[in-house]
Amino acid sequence: MANSEYKVIGTRPIRHDGVDKVTGAAKYGADVRLTGMLHGAIKRSPHAHAVIKGVNTDKAAALPGVTAVMTGADLPAVSHEIVEMGEDSVAQDYLSANVMARDKVLFHGHPVAAVAATELQTALDAIELIEVEYELLEPVLDIEEAMESDAPILWDGLRTTSMGEEGTEPTNVASHFRYEFGDIEAGFAEADHIVDRIFHTAMVHQGYIEPHSSTCVWRKDGRVEVWTATQGAFQIREQLASLLKLELSQVKVTPMEIGGGFGGKFTCYTDLPAAVLSRMSGGRPVKITMSRTEVLQATGPTSGSVVKVKMGATSDGRLTASEASLIYEAGAVPGSPVGAGAGVILAPYKHTNVRIDGYDVLVNKPKTGAYRAPGGTNAAFASECVIDELAKKVGMDPLEFRLLNAAEEGDRRPDGPIYHRIGFKETVESAIDHPHYATPLEGKHRGRGVASGFWFNGGGRSSMSASVAADGMVNLMEGSTDIGGTRASIAMQLAESLGISSDMINPQVVDTDAVGYNDGTGGSRVTFATGYAAWDLGQKLGQQMCEKIAEVWEVEEGSVELKDGVFSHNGKSANFVEVAGELASNSTPVVASTSVSPPQPGPAFSTHIVDVEVDVETGKVQILNYTAIQDVGMAIHPSYAEGQIQGGVVQGIGWALNEEYIYSDDGHLVNASLLDYRMPTALDLPMVETLMIEVPNPGHPYGVRGVGEVPIVPPAAAIGNAIADATGMRLTRLPMSPATVLEQQWSDQACG
Amino acid sequence: MANSEYKVIGTRPIRHDGVDKVTGAAKYGADVRLTGMLHGAIKRSPHAHAVIKGVNTDKAAALPGVTAVMTGADLPAVSHEIVEMGEDSVAQDYLSANVMARDKVLFHGHPVAAVAATELQTALDAIELIEVEYELLEPVLDIEEAMESDAPILWDGLRTTSMGEEGTEPTNVASHFRYEFGDIEAGFAEADHIVDRIFHTAMVHQGYIEPHSSTCVWRKDGRVEVWTATQGAFQIREQLASLLKLELSQVKVTPMEIGGGFGGKFTCYTDLPAAVLSRMSGGRPVKITMSRTEVLQATGPTSGSVVKVKMGATSDGRLTASEASLIYEAGAVPGSPVGAGAGVILAPYKHTNVRIDGYDVLVNKPKTGAYRAPGGTNAAFASECVIDELAKKVGMDPLEFRLLNAAEEGDRRPDGPIYHRIGFKETVESAIDHPHYATPLEGKHRGRGVASGFWFNGGGRSSMSASVAADGMVNLMEGSTDIGGTRASIAMQLAESLGISSDMINPQVVDTDAVGYNDGTGGSRVTFATGYAAWDLGQKLGQQMCEKIAEVWEVEEGSVELKDGVFSHNGKSANFVEVAGELASNSTPVVASTSVSPPQPGPAFSTHIVDVEVDVETGKVQILNYTAIQDVGMAIHPSYAEGQIQGGVVQGIGWALNEEYIYSDDGHLVNASLLDYRMPTALDLPMVETLMIEVPNPGHPYGVRGVGEVPIVPPAAAIGNAIADATGMRLTRLPMSPATVLEQQWSDQACG
Repeated sequence: MANSEYKVIGTRPIRHDGVDKVTGAAKYGADVRLTGMLHGAIKRSPHAHAVIKGVNTDKAAALPGVTAVMTGADLPAVSHEIVEMGEDSVAQDYLSANVMARDKVLFHGHPVAAVAATELQTALDAIELIEVEYELLEPVLDIEEAMESDAPILWDGLRTTSMGEEGTEPTNVASHFRYEFGDIEAGFAEADHIVDRIFHTAMVHQGYIEPHSSTCVWRKDGRVEVWTATQGAFQIREQLASLLKLELSQVKVTPMEIGGGFGGKFTCYTDLPAAVLSRMSGGRPVKITMSRTEVLQATGPTSGSVVKVKMGATSDGRLTASEASLIYEAGAVPGSPVGAGAGVILAPYKHTNVRIDGYDVLVNKPKTGAYRAPGGTNAAFASECVIDELAKKVGMDPLEFRLLNAAEEGDRRPDGPIYHRIGFKETVESAIDHPHYATPLEGKHRGRGVASGFWFNGGGRSSMSASVAADGMVNLMEGSTDIGGTRASIAMQLAESLGISSDMINPQVVDTDAVGYNDGTGGSRVTFATGYAAWDLGQKLGQQMCEKIAEVWEVEEGSVELKDGVFSHNGKSANFVEVAGELASNSTPVVASTSVSPPQPGPAFSTHIVDVEVDVETGKVQILNYTAIQDVGMAIHPSYAEGQIQGGVVQGIGWALNEEYIYSDDGHLVNASLLDYRMPTALDLPMVETLMIEVPNPGHPYGVRGVGEVPIVPPAAAIGNAIADATGMRLTRLPMSPATVLEQQWSDQACG
Repeated sequence: MANSEYKVIGTRPIRHDGVDKVTGAAKYGADVRLTGMLHGAIKRSPHAHAVIKGVNTDKAAALPGVTAVMTGADLPAVSHEIVEMGEDSVAQDYLSANVMARDKVLFHGHPVAAVAATELQTALDAIELIEVEYELLEPVLDIEEAMESDAPILWDGLRTTSMGEEGTEPTNVASHFRYEFGDIEAGFAEADHIVDRIFHTAMVHQGYIEPHSSTCVWRKDGRVEVWTATQGAFQIREQLASLLKLELSQVKVTPMEIGGGFGGKFTCYTDLPAAVLSRMSGGRPVKITMSRTEVLQATGPTSGSVVKVKMGATSDGRLTASEASLIYEAGAVPGSPVGAGAGVILAPYKHTNVRIDGYDVLVNKPKTGAYRAPGGTNAAFASECVIDELAKKVGMDPLEFRLLNAAEEGDRRPDGPIYHRIGFKETVESAIDHPHYATPLEGKHRGRGVASGFWFNGGGRSSMSASVAADGMVNLMEGSTDIGGTRASIAMQLAESLGISSDMINPQVVDTDAVGYNDGTGGSRVTFATGYAAWDLGQKLGQQMCEKIAEVWEVEEGSVELKDGVFSHNGKSANFVEVAGELASNSTPVVASTSVSPPQPGPAFSTHIVDVEVDVETGKVQILNYTAIQDVGMAIHPSYAEGQIQGGVVQGIGWALNEEYIYSDDGHLVNASLLDYRMPTALDLPMVETLMIEVPNPGHPYGVRGVGEVPIVPPAAAIGNAIADATGMRLTRLPMSPATVLEQQWSDQACG
């Protein structure tokens, strides 16, 4: 949907990093090779919950080729100060303990020691020689059990923080908060129809293809250099400085290309032991690369959850009250995305009476991390299934029901903010009008479902600098790591701002010493906020070139104008390349920097339509058709926006139908491989159709909202609603795998 | 000589790259290792002058492990456009032919082919398998013979450009120019005393320790990436783009640490074949590292020369006329530093009648390059020896004679410019007053000499950007490669500008895509011009921080002041680190860029005093004492300024006493090793005493002039004058090696 106002925005140029990516030239974390580099390996706990009675590293240290062996005792003692982790944050001491256990292990795969050696195999052999004596404790894996007063306790010192008050008893409930307004009891009293359900969702992983890999050098001057694939080089810098008790600027992080992150690459894992092992090995570089099993066991999947939703509506379909309770797994240390989940769960609708409770609960599983619209999918699975049922009870088409109750400009979101201009209604209207929705679905055990979703979209701080070369190429230095085509989307905004083509921009993602601070690449903030910076930088460069060429042309200051890439003064004109050349010969170099923190991110909404067929013999759910309709604000590069939408939907389908962490009763993760942790493949999926609506965000010069996260929010609910349509069964448990489907069938038959 | 006005300037902090340099962590050109990297080697001509009848590369190409073999035919045809080379420039076609011969070889060691292979030894074996058929031509090695009309001609198409006119006959004289004012004949007619002498100097090499090494990748998107040690990453970029017929921005040059350059690392040698071999090897990286012999045979030493100087003075010591003719070896293609030599030769003095002629002459030797104050040492050897003799004839102390005739503000330099405030007189006065000069020198065959020198000092374009981290560290991105401590001298000026300590600056020298254009590191321009940029950047950062903190403090715009690193408003104050922290939490990141081309570089003058003892049996000259007095404008980091002065003197001593290219009659370089090309070692040298005078350059906020070049200008003359004082012999040939001294002794005895 190219906007004729623009020359670059809305077009589909080849991405700047495309050739490198398709020819294998792009350098990822594991591609780093430094002179004298050592290889590290991590010794992990085979137990989910145990006290470490002792660690004997003598045999490992004595193995020829081993240069260093470390344990948690080699990490500095740290305080309880909060460390930023991209879309997340956690206390230093919890983060440090998560990266390497000290007194206790808290999940299967929890690191207890690490080794550096001249060869990788030597390091792997050495960790087998480390002897750890454990005293086993009972693990707690179920989130509801974990909340009980007699549950095994992970952190003896933890007390619940509940709406500003701190509890007195040991607990696994790290925090509880509430969003509310109106009178929830009065609202339900007004309702003619009420639906009240409890939903359970499993822990799932982001499933990025590239395992974590970090290479660290602890320099002789006390500075630590890190090469790693991350979504937030500045956040890794802060974590490492904080956990190693260094000054912030003693850590330099160079972000490598990233083979997927989806929120999971904001947290330090391998970096910390690699840095310490480098220091212990006389400053030689140490690289640690995880195996797939390590990634699944011990990085940051997203929370399994229990979500309760109760909603009431009048007989003419108006919502009168909405109540939700979200209990999210934090994993081994506090910090689930329950806050975001609670923000998402009822956000698309107008409310007069609403109450949302959130609980962050520890269990003996890895510390959860952000995963694409963190907490949103499980939240929306609950609320959008309840909306579907409520619409049915009221007797309305589920899209018409959503449209009737849709939030719009001026409405208050349950978590507080008042909406500016948003495009939720437009997505619902487009869904209603869409041929997919209009075309009847025929066939047995087939059903159609719809669901909507919300995501905040982030703002935050972005910095960049640029210079103009003599041939007119604009070298752009940016600090937002490119996880999904943002080199292109940022360069295109700079190009638009200058009136030149995007291949005249040479974007580089640089290290933390080479550009001003940037918040992480997450929260769908980059194309919005870093794009805002690019627009601003373009204005500055253009202004500067106007001033400089005016001097060269010996015309009045301020009399040269830049429009559509052409500089002109009283009939005289020259294009961008010509002026760049003239300035290179006759003026000082064109350079500029900027930093922004745009105040008004634009929330995203999407509405999805899905057709499924349920094999009632096997329980397998096949996706037949999928249409995702989304208000993107402005699609800078429509192909990448569409790709983001498709990718989000596919991950949502995996979460909905197949993916889950399976733990044995004693807390062992039993499916820590991509064979057993079943993500959808191309063969499982139809072509995901996308329809982009462009309701510009008034808080961005090009109307950008952010695209990447909201498409993962509706799929689970839409598929749940489609299954209900196909079979009459209301599934309340993710994944809706064959086993879940069959179990529900039997249970329905038993009940029926 | 710390100036109390400053807190950072004039102090001696540890250099920012110090730890890396002393621990071996710093990465030089040859340290580059890339995945899949190939090794290149160059086939060189064993002849000084020959037609290439044919090159057969079949056997080399067939050797297992060889991935590509190239010859001059694999280079694009290029035009005669001029390419910048730092302090130098040359036509594309000449430069291309210099890097790799096509039809003719023009000097011993001239590249004729190159090979890439998986192993270095394979590449070295392969070049032995390349068969080149030559038709030998008579070489011309003597510059005066080369000017004769029947001399062997290097370039058939070359015609002399003489003061705007082009000649008609084939020649080796590439150009002739003249600087003059007044009436030279009338001036000599006024003179009571005239000295007229001819001086000969040998070709000498910069003698940097690190051989050239380049690694190139010809990427699949057509861009070429280069890692190399260079004084001018932007100049290498321009040369490569030009010679490979690429757009400027298709070449990216990453400057590595440099193990010495002294002017010799502005020109592409290994880069070009490495790039072409990479392209021919499917884009795999190719590294070519020269051997020491290759460096001496075929890089860019400075010109041997014939310099004629005639000067006249009245009996009371006033110069009435000065005439000079400088004939400089260009080597195989046009472009000696004769222009600079002609600018230096009579610059320290007031003139009423002056004429200087310069000639750039081809010989069958490598193309000359810049070498520290290019052309200055040989020029001053002539003029300052003549000054010495003239003072004697007049009957004046040589320093008093110089003082009487010293140029000062408002005087016109022979090459045109009018001096602003300069410090030449101050150096002479300080020499007269110096204990070294006042202390009588006793002993047989001992003598004392003095000489003065001038260097322009460069200005030029510098760009940089910076950001301020949350802990107050200022990350500085600069494009001036650090050949002698400029990370420190630039960081100190930025620190001074901000009122913070220099260890709060983190300077990085970055690649050509990562910073605005910078002229090369040469001409003593960096501490002046890049320092000017650092001052300006500091002003911008400080101003920005004042504005931002005013917003955070909610006080009136413009009401916060930064002084001595403290921000204050109405009694409230916070230091730099505190404000950086506050802004990191509550504002947008602090980032700024700047570019400058400061209009008024400050020329440098120096006056040296040297005592020698001549061993009349062996001809060996021993330096007993050496004092170098120099107007440095402002010594930003006095230790590095002193080090530059000492280093320049030492190189001047080598040039004066030992160093020379020795060619056989048929044009073979016979001393292409550091054993045979004799540079001074610590055992040959006394401690070089330095005295820095600070006459601030009014064209720089901190008065910087530039330090690195002028100290190499006087040594040869000072030593020549000392030998004359010790022995009565006037040596007119460099080096004044034992052989030269003995020859002169015999000749004087024969004449006497």
